[in-house]
Amino acid sequence: MDHAVTTPFEVRWGECDPAGIVYHPVYFDWFAVARMRFLREHGVSYMESLHDRGLVLVVIDVQCQYFKSLRAEDKAWVDASLHMLTKTRLAMQYVVRNERGEVCAQGRTEHAYVDIASQRAVNIAKRAPDVWEVLQKLPRVQVS
Amino acid sequence: MDHAVTTPFEVRWGECDPAGIVYHPVYFDWFAVARMRFLREHGVSYMESLHDRGLVLVVIDVQCQYFKSLRAEDKAWVDASLHMLTKTRLAMQYVVRNERGEVCAQGRTEHAYVDIASQRAVNIAKRAPDVWEVLQKLPRVQVS
Amino acid sequence: MDHAVTTPFEVRWGECDPAGIVYHPVYFDWFAVARMRFLREHGVSYMESLHDRGLVLVVIDVQCQYFKSLRAEDKAWVDASLHMLTKTRLAMQYVVRNERGEVCAQGRTEHAYVDIASQRAVNIAKRAPDVWEVLQKLPRVQVS
Amino acid sequence: MDHAVTTPFEVRWGECDPAGIVYHPVYFDWFAVARMRFLREHGVSYMESLHDRGLVLVVIDVQCQYFKSLRAEDKAWVDASLHMLTKTRLAMQYVVRNERGEVCAQGRTEHAYVDIASQRAVNIAKRAPDVWEVLQKLPRVQVS
Repeated sequence: MDHAVTTPFEVRWGECDPAGIVYHPVYFDWFAVARMRFLREHGVSYMESLHDRGLVLVVIDVQCQYFKSLRAEDKAWVDASLHMLTKTRLAMQYVVRNERGEVCAQGRTEHAYVDIASQRAVNIAKRAPDVWEVLQKLPRVQVS
Repeated sequence: MDHAVTTPFEVRWGECDPAGIVYHPVYFDWFAVARMRFLREHGVSYMESLHDRGLVLVVIDVQCQYFKSLRAEDKAWVDASLHMLTKTRLAMQYVVRNERGEVCAQGRTEHAYVDIASQRAVNIAKRAPDVWEVLQKLPRVQVS
Repeated sequence: MDHAVTTPFEVRWGECDPAGIVYHPVYFDWFAVARMRFLREHGVSYMESLHDRGLVLVVIDVQCQYFKSLRAEDKAWVDASLHMLTKTRLAMQYVVRNERGEVCAQGRTEHAYVDIASQRAVNIAKRAPDVWEVLQKLPRVQVS
Repeated sequence: MDHAVTTPFEVRWGECDPAGIVYHPVYFDWFAVARMRFLREHGVSYMESLHDRGLVLVVIDVQCQYFKSLRAEDKAWVDASLHMLTKTRLAMQYVVRNERGEVCAQGRTEHAYVDIASQRAVNIAKRAPDVWEVLQKLPRVQVS
């Protein structure tokens, strides 16, 4: 996956359920970590560029498919990449791999730029033009 | 939504993120609660009928769309209903409503019956015929 | 336990770990729910009286002892009571019981009133005199 | 702190609460990660040496004091060390530091060796003599 930023994880005991495998909502937590890492690697600190200015990337749609399970102490890598970007929305996709390089899960999250105080969606190019400048230059992948 | 079983929730402080709203993966945790409640209301105790016999409903595909946010101390209701059932898979759908009855989110989860010890998918009708008897009688909704 | 407010719980699948029992940090999440319920029952809405006015009860000290484990679908009850209150601090204690009334865990949390914006501890009687009026009237237990 | 094993963390968005700081139960999740890392660095794989043989370190007592808060994207380090070890119990202590080396929190967890199937406490020297051999050699700190 071109342009992806990879974040390493080590499965935590508390991330696993009574079946002994990673509890499925946890993957979205990993995606959030991978998303912030992707942005930071490309010059956008989520906390400073967005949160501290009263902006948040509110999640409006998510999907995930699970292929292979992971258990505590397993290592995993999440590749995050951007595949859609407009002045009002942004979508990213994620691939989770295990130590053998096998795809364990793949997902997608779509976000709106929201003003925290008003809880309203905003046009990022108007609300924070400097952030939009940086976002526009982010590498994008073609959706498969 | 016909045939749905409704589970009430009250948003926990710890379920919210720095934007002050329910952290999006939490909805899948609520879906899991609502799913077990749905099954139990229809005579299937998840822990006794499945877990204690070495079976688990492994999640293989999930989706969720978010429309309105919720914050700590808000009340919410999740309607869970079954919309697909075979001897190897089962899918449920969920609608989250707030105190005003507005739809806050809607999601879907698809599951395979898996033997915990072998981590293999099984035919539930062969592995646990009595559970299959009960599952077959569950009310199903037509997918919209 | 006199003056306690009791909150019912049903153990969630996602609250349990690979040993099949409630993951120990989850009890503190339950304590937070029980704490907010205690305050609300006594006329203090955490979100409206504190959070919306830029105040938060920051945790400064916690303890918990675990006696009996709980698993998914088990019912549990948490009794929350106040046992220390000053203009700068507040401490609560909690007892977790199972369906047979056995004590599964007991804990304690101590909090400082903190101004979210400045991250500074405040004198609640000065910062929010009306909240202090209500807090002062809360029933208190003698520490055993 | 001599003999400690240090585990690095980067605060996740989902680990923070509406006050914008790490939700206090999360520290116990970090302690669990740091504990497994400590054991692994000293030759005990938690999953293989304990879990896969039907043993678990059940938590029986925890404490934590919080001094400075952390927020999303902050870096933190947890020093874990052993300070008590017998054939039936084990206790560890933890210090959380931020990027400036300031102590943000310190905690302690005490554990019993428990047989998962019977849910009974066991004498580790009898139940798993080889694990006891390794545990005995772990570096211990004097309790301050």
